[in-house]
Formats: sequence, structure tokens, C-alpha cells
Amino acid sequence: MGDIYYHDYLQLDRILSSQTLESKKAGDLQHDEMLFIIVHQAYELWFKEILWELEDVIDAFGSDELDEADMAKVNGRLRRVTEIQKLLLLQIEVLETMTSLDFLDFRDHLVPASGFQSMQFRLIENRLGVRAEDRVNFGGARYTQRLHGKERETVIGSEDEPSIHDLVAGWLERTPFLDEFDFWTVYQDAIGNMLEADREIVRSNPELDEEEREAQLRAFDQTFRQYEAVFDADKHADLVAAGGRRLSHRAFQAALFVSLYRDQTALHQPYEMLELLMDIDEGFTTWRYRHALMTQRMIGRRVGTGGSAGAAYLTRNAEKSRAFPDLFALPTFLIPRAQLPPLPQAISEAMRFRFES
Amino acid sequence: MGDIYYHDYLQLDRILSSQTLESKKAGDLQHDEMLFIIVHQAYELWFKEILWELEDVIDAFGSDELDEADMAKVNGRLRRVTEIQKLLLLQIEVLETMTSLDFLDFRDHLVPASGFQSMQFRLIENRLGVRAEDRVNFGGARYTQRLHGKERETVIGSEDEPSIHDLVAGWLERTPFLDEFDFWTVYQDAIGNMLEADREIVRSNPELDEEEREAQLRAFDQTFRQYEAVFDADKHADLVAAGGRRLSHRAFQAALFVSLYRDQTALHQPYEMLELLMDIDEGFTTWRYRHALMTQRMIGRRVGTGGSAGAAYLTRNAEKSRAFPDLFALPTFLIPRAQLPPLPQAISEAMRFRFES
Amino acid sequence: MGDIYYHDYLQLDRILSSQTLESKKAGDLQHDEMLFIIVHQAYELWFKEILWELEDVIDAFGSDELDEADMAKVNGRLRRVTEIQKLLLLQIEVLETMTSLDFLDFRDHLVPASGFQSMQFRLIENRLGVRAEDRVNFGGARYTQRLHGKERETVIGSEDEPSIHDLVAGWLERTPFLDEFDFWTVYQDAIGNMLEADREIVRSNPELDEEEREAQLRAFDQTFRQYEAVFDADKHADLVAAGGRRLSHRAFQAALFVSLYRDQTALHQPYEMLELLMDIDEGFTTWRYRHALMTQRMIGRRVGTGGSAGAAYLTRNAEKSRAFPDLFALPTFLIPRAQLPPLPQAISEAMRFRFES
Amino acid sequence: MGDIYYHDYLQLDRILSSQTLESKKAGDLQHDEMLFIIVHQAYELWFKEILWELEDVIDAFGSDELDEADMAKVNGRLRRVTEIQKLLLLQIEVLETMTSLDFLDFRDHLVPASGFQSMQFRLIENRLGVRAEDRVNFGGARYTQRLHGKERETVIGSEDEPSIHDLVAGWLERTPFLDEFDFWTVYQDAIGNMLEADREIVRSNPELDEEEREAQLRAFDQTFRQYEAVFDADKHADLVAAGGRRLSHRAFQAALFVSLYRDQTALHQPYEMLELLMDIDEGFTTWRYRHALMTQRMIGRRVGTGGSAGAAYLTRNAEKSRAFPDLFALPTFLIPRAQLPPLPQAISEAMRFRFES
Repeated sequence: MGDIYYHDYLQLDRILSSQTLESKKAGDLQHDEMLFIIVHQAYELWFKEILWELEDVIDAFGSDELDEADMAKVNGRLRRVTEIQKLLLLQIEVLETMTSLDFLDFRDHLVPASGFQSMQFRLIENRLGVRAEDRVNFGGARYTQRLHGKERETVIGSEDEPSIHDLVAGWLERTPFLDEFDFWTVYQDAIGNMLEADREIVRSNPELDEEEREAQLRAFDQTFRQYEAVFDADKHADLVAAGGRRLSHRAFQAALFVSLYRDQTALHQPYEMLELLMDIDEGFTTWRYRHALMTQRMIGRRVGTGGSAGAAYLTRNAEKSRAFPDLFALPTFLIPRAQLPPLPQAISEAMRFRFES
Repeated sequence: MGDIYYHDYLQLDRILSSQTLESKKAGDLQHDEMLFIIVHQAYELWFKEILWELEDVIDAFGSDELDEADMAKVNGRLRRVTEIQKLLLLQIEVLETMTSLDFLDFRDHLVPASGFQSMQFRLIENRLGVRAEDRVNFGGARYTQRLHGKERETVIGSEDEPSIHDLVAGWLERTPFLDEFDFWTVYQDAIGNMLEADREIVRSNPELDEEEREAQLRAFDQTFRQYEAVFDADKHADLVAAGGRRLSHRAFQAALFVSLYRDQTALHQPYEMLELLMDIDEGFTTWRYRHALMTQRMIGRRVGTGGSAGAAYLTRNAEKSRAFPDLFALPTFLIPRAQLPPLPQAISEAMRFRFES
Repeated sequence: MGDIYYHDYLQLDRILSSQTLESKKAGDLQHDEMLFIIVHQAYELWFKEILWELEDVIDAFGSDELDEADMAKVNGRLRRVTEIQKLLLLQIEVLETMTSLDFLDFRDHLVPASGFQSMQFRLIENRLGVRAEDRVNFGGARYTQRLHGKERETVIGSEDEPSIHDLVAGWLERTPFLDEFDFWTVYQDAIGNMLEADREIVRSNPELDEEEREAQLRAFDQTFRQYEAVFDADKHADLVAAGGRRLSHRAFQAALFVSLYRDQTALHQPYEMLELLMDIDEGFTTWRYRHALMTQRMIGRRVGTGGSAGAAYLTRNAEKSRAFPDLFALPTFLIPRAQLPPLPQAISEAMRFRFES
Repeated sequence: MGDIYYHDYLQLDRILSSQTLESKKAGDLQHDEMLFIIVHQAYELWFKEILWELEDVIDAFGSDELDEADMAKVNGRLRRVTEIQKLLLLQIEVLETMTSLDFLDFRDHLVPASGFQSMQFRLIENRLGVRAEDRVNFGGARYTQRLHGKERETVIGSEDEPSIHDLVAGWLERTPFLDEFDFWTVYQDAIGNMLEADREIVRSNPELDEEEREAQLRAFDQTFRQYEAVFDADKHADLVAAGGRRLSHRAFQAALFVSLYRDQTALHQPYEMLELLMDIDEGFTTWRYRHALMTQRMIGRRVGTGGSAGAAYLTRNAEKSRAFPDLFALPTFLIPRAQLPPLPQAISEAMRFRFES
């Protein structure tokens, strides 16, 4: 180790000389193009950091078993990603200091480059577990179509690598205790009662008119079919086949078990992990949505520089590209703690530490 | 003036004794109900402040003419609203520290109360200019249906009062200079060229396959019809009739004029006002969307406490309830500064101050 | 339970009618006084929520022993406080939309009310464990002097109630394992080596001139005396007597143990609790500092409305009023994981769960 | 123009391959070093953008006269800087997801690199107008000492270039109208009355004890001497000589004039510029302070990697390094609008636009 110098350590000679304004090259320097370049470079730096964290999470899972001592580390990595997502969101507000007219002054110099060509963002989605079918297609184009050469190969290659979704699914399936008590019968009764009470809310609400009441009762029946699938592997399989679930029946039940008994010491970290995965999914959904609003404001209903369908496409895509849709379905199946079947003592004790402090 | 005391001035005896937990009344105290009450009370305090600002803006417009010296004040009020909106958004993250299971523990005590019953939020929407038809109906119910007595009357009454949208529309129509030069012919040529160039982007983009290209060209033709309406009062009227525009032809042209010539001294503040109105609209859209995501995560696909259709309804509603949709259409019609017809000198000078500093 | 209605549940009749503008009463209505009132009421609402959380944390500790299953709950409460602190900070930016001139227009109506008279903020400080001597006095006045009647009594009364600082201190003292292995001898060697290496950094740094090098070596010797106190109860007692430490020797060692071996499963939650307590302390320090900057900008070097010493006082106070100063001293005594003495297997196993998943 | 490709346009081959972990080179890969590098590279990217904006502001001033049409542009640039500062602040929270122990695991590999070696941050300070004497020295070292070769030369060279402070000072001195009415006599009376009223607040406040009252009255007399300097060029010159003011007497009076008559149309943008300059100054002060808190938490009282004096130094430095200290003194000299001398009609009209809309 020689004497480390800040400027060299951060390779600032390269970092700070990598902004070449196309407008300047064209003899038509536009001040705001610098912001445009720098905000995108900052995005890519943070994407690299997110990938670095996600790959470390994958490594922790990738060994035969996720060691319990590694749970805090995994959660720390995921929590860091959620903090970075706040930056991603705030960077939109910085970019919005550039108005549509300012952008128009250099937009033509960028054609046909497009944010769709960010390899790293696609890799993040794939590492998390977003699948090709979870994306909105436009005109039949695959999401990798705009990527070139090495970038396209890398993204397509990543589709076959294990995703956090799949590793978490496997880990959930190995949850102990699930078969050791008659949880599901007790739970099924509890949820049946709650369900009926909910239906009664709709029936007796004096503020609903007839049309509204019926619309809600119909929505209710639809929900009911989902409840049944919690207890019935075949109905769950039907849901999976129809694209309504991704997790296996056992993994879904395990996630529900962790959510319901989260107050047990041994489930603190597993529950936090499920929450963090939802935070990350929701964080990207929010970011995509804000990005769509910004694009709409920047270019109106024009086509994007990459010839994309522009803002309308982006809005539709925001909600759809989720990696952990099943986790967001869990709240539907929770019951109040007071109605929760108590755990057998042997299990309850196994979920505490051996020592008494 | 007597001796003012902090505690009395803020009426803290009342403010701090207005949290009555329904769960406690039912002998089933749930810790997190306090958060639930306080976050909603904080929302209502900020809604009151927003209304206070919006009403002052309406007053400034309401006199015969908006005095130019009041423009900075109006913009200051609107900017304050955007700062408050950041609070509204952050409050969601505080509420999200309550998990779905925690909420479930007291949710039944709140039936059938609902956030739909916030009178002030409806008043804010009406003051801005959201109309009944700009909202998503569910099962035929009017947006005021869940409100009771005085609250319902107040909201319905506000529908007939002048909105900021309408006052801004009137103010735009009185914009001077619009008829004093042949702006529109020059502009029409410029935009025609740009439009054709954009279409060429799509046609020649080697990265689009045939299906995608055609989808985009169809979307393009649709945009083209909007361009025509900029120059043709009849076509604009058709758009208005079809619900695609709210502003009159003249007001729309004025907003476009302000956007294009924003660099003129006299248009600095008017342009900033248009930007702030969009910021506010976008701020509420984002808040509604985040609120929908939070609700989905809190209650899953259950019915809401007010018997509402829950999260799905909220997501659809987020995008629709805009007060200033036409302003978001403006970016579609901008052209780069380099192609902008120069202003006649007389007009250009009239838009500067008399003194030389 | 009757039919709950949003407006009644939140007691909005009271909440929304509790803004009485002094400027209006004096026939001199100033628009921005509404913001001033509402932002302070929002602060007090959130202070109530913070107290609600802190008191629940105190209750969890207050029973004979903090049950391990309650650790996640305690950490959840503390994390919520940190989220609320972000709101407190952002509310300053909303208040800053009122400029100094706007404030001046109604400031005289508020004399001699003062933010120093917030009972709840003082209670929060006392619940956390800020002591009278941890505050900057101005002109000999006690921090409770500006409070009246019941508020003053309540705050003074709270000084004798158990604080989170003291409860955490007691809990740290009961940490098991501390006496079960010869940790401190091994650690003492490790830290001795690191210390010498650090000193060498200063000695050999070619970029320091002689004067700077000596200043740093002196600062270094001072740090060294703190290291000695970690291993020597008498020297620790001297530090406590001199006001340099609050925790007992054993509690300080326990906190260090938790920090060093945080990767053990059983220490995940305890370590997170220490981090959260620092987050909260730092959060209030940052808020006080931002508040001081805002005050300086609002009133310049005038006296405050309560006749306070104004902004200069506030800045000095920001850094001093800490509840957990010892925790911030811990980083000084950490050593890299590679140099950490390994735990005996019996202890290491006792800090894992009984089951294998 | 060729076909622009996202990956090439942003030079991602360079940007994303510029993270070389020293810990890895030493065969001791530490996961969190990646975060450390990336957060600092992101800082430097944003520093480049800030410099880009500041230099454009300098250019706008640098011509003979700041054209009024450029005011909105200048304010836009400055406002963008304040938005970027929010990012800088948030990046600290991302970095804080790395705990002290994690940092310790690779800290030794970085010696003696230091954040003090950021050339761009020093350039930003110099462009704004922070002078060598506005910084806290440690052990006699100049702030440029840790910089090497080209970086040091660049920073030292920038000391002689015009700063925004100096350009704004010159622009203020050219403010028209200042000599055209007897503003200062009327104002002097008004402020004299207010001053006496303020003093009376202290004298009659029943809640102050004798010691506190006297301390405040002494502080008050000190303020009074500043008031005198507003009206007396010689006393102002004394303040400048003593380091208490930077602006010339005339520039200070002009800034006060702009602050007091900000409601005039022609002063909207000048007033906003003064506010933005304070925002930027305050933004960096807050950032330095948060940075100091973070450092304290990360390294405790150790020496910094660059052999710096560590956290204590950073805290002292946060408050001191201001570029526009005089602007923060202005609020002390404001008077309520009701007491403001009215402007002569000729001046008032010159500050409006020629046209009536």
C-alpha cells in the first residue's frame, strides 16, 4: 500500500472527465445537458451499488442454508437499498429543475438514446425476480430489444440466474414448525368468522346505495376465492397457473405464518426481511410512477428520444413490474392477534434464546 | 395585548386532549391507534393551512384584476403549498411504521369511518378546480355521499364557488400582446417541421420492429389532431366537448405563449405560476398514488373501513383527479428556443422595466 | 360502538377551530400567523405521539426484566420516533416559507410567548434522560423558568421519573456472558496495537507540518486516557465524576461488548437498540441546530419573542443536550473484526436459536 | 450526429469501472468499501454540477451588467443548487447505513486519504466567496495543505478569481433609487422606535430573573452598535475592519432596501436572489454540521484517515465557513411593513411594467 490520495482513490480524473455534451459537439452548447448527463451517471453509480448489495444477499442465500447469524446482515443490505431508493426519488426532483423547454433545446441531439437502455436497471429487476411476463410490452417488443451487444447479452444471461424471489421462496419452504401443530384448522375458523364480519360491514353500511353495495359484494366473492386457496393446494395451484401467485403453496403458507407470529423472537428478523422486500418493491414502483409523471411533464405526449411510447407506457408499467406480488397479498389474510391460535409451548420455547439475561 | 403564553396561544389544552382511542373505549387498548389518530389530525391541520393559502390566492384573483405586484405573493402562497405537500408525503412513511397486523388489531373499532369523509380534502380539490366528472366513481356513488350534514353541505356548496382553475383561465384570457403580432403563423410552420422530424424518428429507428413502429405511428396521429386544435378554435372546441380540454382556446394559446416566451422579464412570474400549479397537481397525484400503495399494503384486498372498494379504487383515482390537465398538455407543443419566432421590439420592450439599473 | 364518523372520531370540530390569530384580534390580520400557529400545533401533536412511544418503551423496561420477545417492539417504537423526527425537520422548511419580514408583521402580538414554553418537548428530553446539567444555561435561568403552573409542575415532576437512559443502563448492567471469558485481556492487547498504529499515522503523515502534528499528538494523549478508563473501574469513576461519562463502568463495558459482537444472533436486536438511541439523540441535535439556523434567519440578532437570548443561545444548546453521550464515545474503542477475540463456543452457541431451520 | 447509445453517451464503461477497492487489492475484501467509494464519487459528480451552475451565474454577472432578463435564469441556477444540496444531505443518511465497525474493517487501507482533499468542494467555497480567513485553521495549516499538485494549484488559483459574493456586492452597489429619496431618515426613526420597544420587552419580562435580564441587555447594547453602522459609513467601515462585515456600506444598504421593499414588482427577482444565496449558505452549513455528526459517530474521537483533528474540528468549522454572512445580519434591521416609509410615486411606478395586462 502506497500513500493513498483522495483524487486517485476515487479515480476522479476519469469520473470528472466523462461528461461530453452532445449539444456542444454540435456547436450548440446547451447548459442543462450537463445536469442531464450527471443525474443519469449518478443513477448508474447507485444502480451499481444496489446490484452490489443484491448480489451479496444472493450469495448469503446461495450457500446451502441461510445462516441465522447472516439474517441481520441480509436485512442490513436490503435496508441500505431502501435508503438508496430515497436518493433515486429525490434525484427526480433535481432533474425537474430542468423545464420542458430547456430539455427541448438539446433533446434532438440525443436521439435515439433512451433510459430503456440502462443495463443495470434491468439487471436489478432480474436479480430481484421481475420476469419478462411481469412487464408491460409495447407493440410486441421484448424489454431487452433496445439494449446493444454486451449489455443485451448480460441482461438476457441474468434471466437464468437465481433471483432473490426464488431464493426467498426456497428459504420459506424450509421454514420449520409448519407441520408440527394444527395451525391451519384453527386459523381457518378464525378467518372464516372475520370474513363473514367483513361481508356484514358491506351489507349493513347505510351509506352505500344498492349499486355500490352489489359492486362491493361481487369484489368480495372474488377475494373469497383467494382465501380458499390458502388452505387448498389445488386451488393455489390454479391461482399460480392463472398468474395470480408466484410462490408455491408451502412458501405462501410459511410467509403467512411468519407474518402472523412475527412477535416471536426467532421470527423478528425473518419478518423484517419480508417487510424490506416489500419496501424495495414499493420503492421501485413509486420511482417508476414519479418517473412517468416527470416524463409526461417534460415531453408531454411526444415520443421519447428512444422512440418509446412515452409517458403513457411508463405509467402502466409502474404498477406491473413487481418482484414480490404475493407478499402484498398477505395482508388480506391476516387476523387480529386476539384471534390468533396460540403456539404450542414446545414451539414457542424453541423460538427463544437459551440463556436468560 | 395581555401576556401571551405559548400553551394558551396554541390552545394546547384542546389540541392535546382530542385523541380518544376507540379501542380503549372498548376496553381493548391498542397502542398504534394513537398514531392513527394523530397522523390524521396532522393531515387535517395541514389541509386547513392549504385551504388558507388557496383562499388567499382566490382573493388576489377575485378583485377585478390580479395586480402584477401581487404575483410574487400568489406564487409564494402556491410554493408554500408545494412545501406542505412534501410533509403530506412524508407522513405516509410515518404511518407505514404501523404494520397491517397492528392496524388489524383496532380496525374493527373504526367501522364505518373513512378517509373519504375528509371534508377539507374535498374542499381543496374543489378550490383548485377538480370537478365531479374528474373523479373515478365507484358503483355510481357521488364523491360527497359519505359526508354527513354540515360537511356535505359545505363541500357541495363549494362546487359553485370560483376555483383557481377558472380564475387562472380568466386571467390567461386577458393576456396582452396575443393579437399584436403574427405569432401563430410563424409558430405553426416551426411546429410542423418539428412534428415531421419526430415522426421520422419513429420511422427510421432501427431498433423498433414492425409491430411496435406501427403502434407508435398510430399514437402519433392521435397527437397530431391535438396540434391542429392549437391553431383552430373549432377543433379546440371539439376537444373541449370531448373532455380533452378545459381551457378556452384563447386561454390555452395564452398559456402556450407564456411557456414559450418565459425568458421575457414580464413573464417570469406568470410562467412560475403555471409551473407551481402543475407542481401542486402533480403533488396531489403522487400523494394519492402513495396513499393507494400504503392502503394496499395495510389492508390487502379487504374492503376499507368505510366499506370502500379499497386499494384498487384508490390507484385508479390517483391519476384522474387533476385540476389543471391542460397545463400538462403544453409541453407537447413547445419548440426549441432557436426556432422560436422573435418578438417585435415594441412588445419585447414593454416586457422590461422602465429604469436601467 | 355506534357508527363512527371520521369528523367526530378525529374531533375536528375542536382541532380545526383552535387557531385564533392574535393579529386578527388586534384588528391587524396577518396572513402568515396561521402558518405559525399550525406548524406549532403540528409539532405539539407529534410531540404527543413521541411521548406515547417513549412511555411505552419505559413500560417495557419497567417490569422486572425486558423480555427478549419485546425487543422488536421496543425497537419498532424507537424507529417510529426516528421517522417522526424527519417530519419535525421538514416542518422547519415549511415554516421557512415565511420570511423574516412576514414574521415581523405579527411578531409583536406574540410577546412574550416562546417555544421555550413547550412542556412536551421538555418532557421528551426528560424521558430520554437529558438532565438539567446537560443544558446550556443562559444568565442563570433554569430550563423550567418560562413554564407556568401545571406545565412547570409536570416537567419538574418528570425529572424524578425513570428515564430511558437509566433503564437502558440497568439493562446493560445485567448483560450475561461478560464475566465468563477473559475478553478484556485479549481486547486490551488488540486495542493497544491499534492505538499505537493510529499514533504512527500522525507521526509519519508527510502532509502535516510540525505545529499541526504536535496539536494532534496532544489530542491523542487525551484520547488515550479515555482508553485506560475502559479497563479500569477507578479511572472510569474519575471520568464519571468529571462529567465525561454517565454509564457505570459495567454498563459501558456491556455496551462495548454488544457493539463488538453485534454479528451474534442474540445481539442483533440489542445492537439495533443502541443504534436507534443514537439516531434519536442525533435527530434532536440536528433539529435543534436547524431550528437555531432558522431562528437566526428569521429574527437576526434580535431578542426572541420570549425575551430569550435568541439564535446564538440556540446554537450552543444544540450540541450539548444529549441523552446518550456515552454511546457516541463507543466508536472510539472499536477494533476491526479481524482483531476481535473469538467467543468461547459455549457462549457463541448460547447466542443462537435452538432449532435448525 | 451518429446514433447515440445510452451506454456510450454516459461513458458508462469508464464510470462503472472506476471503483477499485483498496481492501480487495490488499486481499482483504470488505463489502462496504464499495458504498464508501460510490457515495464519494456521487458527491464529486454533484460538486461538478454545482460548479457548472455557479460558473454560469458568474458569467451572467461578469458582463458589464446583469441584464434583468437574466435574473430568472440566475435564480433558476441557484435554486437548482439548493435542490442538489438536499441530495448531498440525504447521501449522508445512505452512508450512515455503514456502521463504525464496518468502516473500521477497511479504514486502515485508506490512510492518509481524506475528504479534505476534495478539490471541487474547495472550488465551490471559493466560487461562492468563502475566504481563507473564514475557515477554522487547525494547528496553523492552510486549507489547501492536503491537496496535491494540480489540485492545489487550481484551488489556490481560484482564490484570485471573482466570487459570487463580490459580483453580487458590485451589483448591489449599482442599485438605482437609493439616493433618490430621503429613505434613511424616515427609516432611522422607525427602527429607533422598534429598538426601544424591543429593549422594553427585556426590561419588563416578568419571567426573567435579574441575572438573565442583565445578560440580555448587554447583548442588546452590542446589537445597537450594529444598528448605528447601518446609517454611518465610518462605523460600518469599523465593522468591516473588525471582520464583522464584508459588504461595502452602500451594498449593505442596498441589500436592506431590497429586503424591505421586496413587494415591488421590480424587486421580486432581486429579493429572491438574496434569499437563494442565504439558502445555499445555510445548506452548506447544515451539510457540514451533519457531516461532523456522522464523522463523530463513525470514528468517535479517533484521528481521521487523513490525520485530521476529526469530528471536533468539523463541528467548529460548520458554522464559520459562510460566504454571505452579511445577508444573515439583515433580518436584524427589518421593520414591519406598516412602519415602512412609502416610496415616492415616481420610484414606485418605475418599478412596475409599462403595460397594463
